[in-house]
Amino acid sequence: MPTIAPPESSAPFAFSVEAVDPETGARAGRFNTPHGPILTPCFMPVGTQATVKSLAPEELEALGAQIVLANTYHLSLRPGAEVIAGLGGLHRFMSWRRPILTDSGGFQVFSLAHLRRLDEEGVTFRSHIDGSEQRLTPERAVGIQEQLGADVIMAFDECIEYPAAPGRVRESMERTHRWAERCRRAQTRTDQALFGIVQGGVHDDLRRESARVLAGLDFPGYAIGGVSVGETKEDCWRVATLVSSLLPAARPRYLMGVGSPEDLAQGVAGGVDLFDCVLPTRLGRNGAILTDAGRVTLTRRRWRDEAGPLDPTCDCYTCTHFSAAYVHHLFKAEELLAYRLASIHNLRYMARISARMRLAILERRFGPWRRSFLAGYRVADEAARQVQREKRLAAWTVQRARLDGVSSPSGATQAAGEMAAAFEAADAAELDEAVVEANGDAVGGGGRGRPWGPLPAAQGSGGDRVQGGEPEGQGEVAGGRAVP
Amino acid sequence: MPTIAPPESSAPFAFSVEAVDPETGARAGRFNTPHGPILTPCFMPVGTQATVKSLAPEELEALGAQIVLANTYHLSLRPGAEVIAGLGGLHRFMSWRRPILTDSGGFQVFSLAHLRRLDEEGVTFRSHIDGSEQRLTPERAVGIQEQLGADVIMAFDECIEYPAAPGRVRESMERTHRWAERCRRAQTRTDQALFGIVQGGVHDDLRRESARVLAGLDFPGYAIGGVSVGETKEDCWRVATLVSSLLPAARPRYLMGVGSPEDLAQGVAGGVDLFDCVLPTRLGRNGAILTDAGRVTLTRRRWRDEAGPLDPTCDCYTCTHFSAAYVHHLFKAEELLAYRLASIHNLRYMARISARMRLAILERRFGPWRRSFLAGYRVADEAARQVQREKRLAAWTVQRARLDGVSSPSGATQAAGEMAAAFEAADAAELDEAVVEANGDAVGGGGRGRPWGPLPAAQGSGGDRVQGGEPEGQGEVAGGRAVP
Repeated sequence: MPTIAPPESSAPFAFSVEAVDPETGARAGRFNTPHGPILTPCFMPVGTQATVKSLAPEELEALGAQIVLANTYHLSLRPGAEVIAGLGGLHRFMSWRRPILTDSGGFQVFSLAHLRRLDEEGVTFRSHIDGSEQRLTPERAVGIQEQLGADVIMAFDECIEYPAAPGRVRESMERTHRWAERCRRAQTRTDQALFGIVQGGVHDDLRRESARVLAGLDFPGYAIGGVSVGETKEDCWRVATLVSSLLPAARPRYLMGVGSPEDLAQGVAGGVDLFDCVLPTRLGRNGAILTDAGRVTLTRRRWRDEAGPLDPTCDCYTCTHFSAAYVHHLFKAEELLAYRLASIHNLRYMARISARMRLAILERRFGPWRRSFLAGYRVADEAARQVQREKRLAAWTVQRARLDGVSSPSGATQAAGEMAAAFEAADAAELDEAVVEANGDAVGGGGRGRPWGPLPAAQGSGGDRVQGGEPEGQGEVAGGRAVP
Repeated sequence: MPTIAPPESSAPFAFSVEAVDPETGARAGRFNTPHGPILTPCFMPVGTQATVKSLAPEELEALGAQIVLANTYHLSLRPGAEVIAGLGGLHRFMSWRRPILTDSGGFQVFSLAHLRRLDEEGVTFRSHIDGSEQRLTPERAVGIQEQLGADVIMAFDECIEYPAAPGRVRESMERTHRWAERCRRAQTRTDQALFGIVQGGVHDDLRRESARVLAGLDFPGYAIGGVSVGETKEDCWRVATLVSSLLPAARPRYLMGVGSPEDLAQGVAGGVDLFDCVLPTRLGRNGAILTDAGRVTLTRRRWRDEAGPLDPTCDCYTCTHFSAAYVHHLFKAEELLAYRLASIHNLRYMARISARMRLAILERRFGPWRRSFLAGYRVADEAARQVQREKRLAAWTVQRARLDGVSSPSGATQAAGEMAAAFEAADAAELDEAVVEANGDAVGGGGRGRPWGPLPAAQGSGGDRVQGGEPEGQGEVAGGRAVP
């Protein structure tokens, strides 16, 4: 097993490749952090506001979460990085003793905030919470992340819309490179690993260039950004594979905002080590659970009398303690415990699938494992996914324009709320589609029309829906839903 | 310690009085059930829909819940008593191994359902969920509760509005007595204790008569119903004390839908053994926590930087794992974990205060304990409480009239939703009032205007707000709240 010693500067963050699959680029690794090692491949649950929605730290540990994400943008606005620093940092704040990764806030600034003014120095924007003017620069993004104190922090990158003209993508990518250098220089703590972020859209030439430039800056780890923003899954997987092949083998690779179980199978094959996505928790809160057969909708009547667990192959708390009928009832009755139980199952599923891939790689049988898994896993229909995404983006454009046209903070808050409501509807449609597909019937019987009631989670105030964390809680519980 | 042997018929439900306070009527007891003993005085958390909102069974056990309530009305409509029976009964359904008490559904039929038609045989009504016509009789209420399989089941009683003319109260009380006899005859299971319910409003003569008649029917336990429906707390406490003095000493006494910490202190002094109320969980979900000083509002800015626990004297999971600042943050961010952490604290507070009273009784010092407790506990202002309650009842009357005027099931569902929204607003005002009072400032600073965001719980579709369980989940999460 080739263990590659990290350079002196990132010694606390040694990454060792324990095995490489002979058929694909998949690798099993071990990434050390001050709060313990992370065995890869690894799916990282998202705790946007210093909490993985509905779950307590003990539950996350019990389901096998090795590391969680938190969002710099959200936490810097509320409660504020100084507050968290004053309380002893993010680990103590959220009572989580394992590793944490914070993003840089870049993705949210460009998707969730409004009235953005971009210049070479940084970006000025208004908070989506109270409309207050904020400024983020590479230096400030690093400074905030140093205050938060995560184990892994991310460079501040410019995130652009998709699709975008190649010239625009290049311009943004080059700025991201300059900002990556500034982040590197701004870093003062040695107990945090700063990851660089490769950009370049779906353009292979730009992706190659970005990987080369960032590799030259010698980061202790690299992320592949600018994915999961509307491109096809095939584009995402191709870019991930291409970029992985160009990054230093001795550094961990993180595909941001991805993914679903099938994304993991494909991304790992391409050489990716780390993943994050709100999908498992968001699906869970909407009554969809992950299984090896695909997504299953809990609210269908067939579960009403099911005395067995949701997933007989699962060892999670939910599946070992409750009947499917009970969880079904909790969703029909819109009980808070439902969101927790489904989230636990889905995150356990992601942890288990990560561990299963790791074992397959270590045993040099990842290729056959992946083929077998993908043959059995019914994915959401790509065409339907794109249609729904376009609806969502159209709603986004309209609402963003409206939001940007609002001058008063209170008006902005209201408009942000409307945007969130619009997104909830669009997300709901997307989730419906995905869920219905997996259940094999598209009409009636609880598949469509959000028969499972509220969407306490599906709100998404912008492109934030998938990548880099879930939006703040406005609308999380109340949503925009009228009581039926 | 006088231990009074129960009669043969209720042997599985032996109740022994372990100590009686020399100064008051307070008593410490032990009530055996097929799922274990209940040490009294005991506060029973409410799990309306077979789940104590936001909590898992292990959490309830850990915080010292000895028994939980569930609601016959709600469960018979969804998922249906047959479904639960088919899944092995309520204990297995909700994965709860300790005792359960189910109410008879009477209170909800008369408060939550609509288009009620009362006759001597029973009551016909429409479900608040789907508008379907339902019928409940004493026999059916017992039958459903036998299907659910709780340890303690309740007689089906007629619950009337407050205030009501004495003649109307008498008529209703007498019907309740006839129904109590029918319930007794309808019972077939011997492993469930059927409690009779004393009615009679705030009229001492009627209460005396009701206690005498029911005592003559020799139930294994007695409840004091028709309280917490709008009368003053003084009326409630007086009735509880009067009725307790007339009930057989060798039977447990249960004050339905009551109460707050001060209610427990007063009710126990009056001779009550068992209490239930949604208040602790509902307050918790609204960001108000219970302490020996009264209710405290978590969303006030003073908690933002508080590194210590919510309540330094508390041993609950929340207080031993998280700073007040973190819980404050979760409420401000409207995160689901907030509702859980505050509910855990408040229910632990109720379990602790029950245990403290029990110890004081056993040690013959309950009188001084109660005086000391009440001197330190700042209760919600009674006048303000009544004003808010009147507002709520007025809204209720309007909405109920509207609901009853709707003929189609779908229209009824919509109207029910609007009613829930109206109640949410009224409840919010009431909670605000209570919380503000305890915090000692009535204006600004986070006290008023629901600064703590949504009211995922405070919805109350009728008089159900306090007694006998929380309404079904509609509006529970989504409420009627527009995204701000």
